[in-house]
Amino acid sequence: MTGDVRTIEWTGDALRLLDQTLLPARVEYAAVRDVDALVEAIRRLVVRGAPALGVAGAFGVAIAVRQAAREGWDDARRDAAITRVREARPTAVNLAAGVDRVLPFVAKGVDAVVAEAQAILDEDVRGNRAIGAFGADWILGRVGDRPLRVLTHCNAGALATAGWGTALGVVRELHKRGRVEIVYADETRPLLQGARLTAWELDEAGIPCVVQVDAAAPSTILRGLADVAVIGADRVAANGDTANKIGSVGVALACAAAGIPLVVAAPWSTVDLAVPDGDAIPIEERPADEVLTWGGARTAPGRTGAFNPAFDVTPARLVTALVTETGVLEVSAGATPVSAGATPSAVSARR
Amino acid sequence: MTGDVRTIEWTGDALRLLDQTLLPARVEYAAVRDVDALVEAIRRLVVRGAPALGVAGAFGVAIAVRQAAREGWDDARRDAAITRVREARPTAVNLAAGVDRVLPFVAKGVDAVVAEAQAILDEDVRGNRAIGAFGADWILGRVGDRPLRVLTHCNAGALATAGWGTALGVVRELHKRGRVEIVYADETRPLLQGARLTAWELDEAGIPCVVQVDAAAPSTILRGLADVAVIGADRVAANGDTANKIGSVGVALACAAAGIPLVVAAPWSTVDLAVPDGDAIPIEERPADEVLTWGGARTAPGRTGAFNPAFDVTPARLVTALVTETGVLEVSAGATPVSAGATPSAVSARR
Repeated sequence: MTGDVRTIEWTGDALRLLDQTLLPARVEYAAVRDVDALVEAIRRLVVRGAPALGVAGAFGVAIAVRQAAREGWDDARRDAAITRVREARPTAVNLAAGVDRVLPFVAKGVDAVVAEAQAILDEDVRGNRAIGAFGADWILGRVGDRPLRVLTHCNAGALATAGWGTALGVVRELHKRGRVEIVYADETRPLLQGARLTAWELDEAGIPCVVQVDAAAPSTILRGLADVAVIGADRVAANGDTANKIGSVGVALACAAAGIPLVVAAPWSTVDLAVPDGDAIPIEERPADEVLTWGGARTAPGRTGAFNPAFDVTPARLVTALVTETGVLEVSAGATPVSAGATPSAVSARR
Repeated sequence: MTGDVRTIEWTGDALRLLDQTLLPARVEYAAVRDVDALVEAIRRLVVRGAPALGVAGAFGVAIAVRQAAREGWDDARRDAAITRVREARPTAVNLAAGVDRVLPFVAKGVDAVVAEAQAILDEDVRGNRAIGAFGADWILGRVGDRPLRVLTHCNAGALATAGWGTALGVVRELHKRGRVEIVYADETRPLLQGARLTAWELDEAGIPCVVQVDAAAPSTILRGLADVAVIGADRVAANGDTANKIGSVGVALACAAAGIPLVVAAPWSTVDLAVPDGDAIPIEERPADEVLTWGGARTAPGRTGAFNPAFDVTPARLVTALVTETGVLEVSAGATPVSAGATPSAVSARR
């Protein structure tokens, strides 16, 4: 696999999604043609990862427009359906952004919507390649130009994007340059995106990887077994506070204690300048059963409840570098998205 | 349940163990009569938890002496069997200490060994009650005399001891005083001692509890949702560095960042003054399959390996209080086991 995992693809009359709930056991695709099915696929994490959700949201508008024409919906019903797609998951800003970007094309018809959604997809892959290059350059400059031990959490890979990946895009680029000794992949409970998806992607790409329980990450870092941690982001606030998969802030605290860099790799679209800081980022809470059951069997006693936040917020002071397709911001040293200006073109470190 | 969980009990001709691998689905007991079965039970975590392992080690000597008599072993073979019990798991100092304490009684016969092992068991329960009282007093004095939100990791409960528990002994005592609002129980991957055992114990005791994934603990703490974290210990070095279940140091880093106390509750026998600091504590690595499989099904791709350390080390500077049956040491403020002297009687805070 060299970045051409087809995570998400428009096939002319449907959105084809690689069903990530079935990996690594089975590689199967879902063909989504209506809004209900898309909302369900987003909620069940058939498609997941902030950038992939942006693409899914954009194509979701195309699906709604097609369904409205097919079933004779009025505009109000069509728009309500689009809103349901937009709000299918609350934390990732990309989903809403993907929807919003194609909305102006609705009046021009479905082909225009599809074309704009496809442009988002293509930009995502190009952007990931740029993230990979910027990130690899920065890490090798900071940590040392040698094979590195990289820790990652959750899956910010080709499967989370339209291809190549953000955090794993950096890892892929390091690997291309012969600079990966080993990847420690946190398994990422409750849904095991690390064990199931990251390990699968890395295995396909021939990148050496071991899976560890999430609770092991801080000690792996404190014991000096990792040179750098690279994670994705679901939303970055104007001050650099970063929302990502639950467990990320634990990785971040350990990186700071051990003095190794925490690199957040994400498309610029993940930056939400309307959100001043992490306190203003809504944190999705997911069903208790994700924590309390496994393969249909309950792990805890019948009456026990669960607390299941899907994300946490890493404060800007713990984010060493934010890598986007426009360059690298050294956040903990004071460079924040807002200091870089409201648009990518204002970022000084861009290529 | 009021502390009379029979985790481990001598029945006259066998050691009766509550099989903790089957909880919470089934409450079953194993009757252990030979050394091989005991070593296997210790390795499989049928019995687990530092204090319970100390009791199991002591009765293990009785089992070896009985088996030697039954099967006509010479002393060398008997002693080799005792050594196998002593070394069945490497990190918990209590296992070896339990064995060593009864060794002088071997020459006096099996009844003398059993009597001394039973004394260890009885002392453990008494000690846990004292730990609970010291810990509750200290926490209420430090955090405030009101219903508290307590975070715990793994299981340092009645199931990890001969009864009542260490960290959960503190929680039980707080609950007795009407001072528990909620317990956040980390599920504790890979073997889910939190979801399976802690949640079961708390449910039986009527103490409100929610289970969370281990990765959620740092953000639960940083979000201000917990007033105190209370954990057990498998070994405490002379300087106060503490080995406990993998994930503990992540909890500790978050407590320090949030400014809430991390309380380590453990019997004084867990303190190993022969070990100067955490670097000298051996960290057990357990089989990769614990991480990579679930209910017989693999979670990661076939070729992927795992890194599975069972413990991590929390540096003394992150341990706010060490509570033993002899009193409370404020470790991060400079009071270490070694400053308290070589024996519990030198600890100034004792009752």
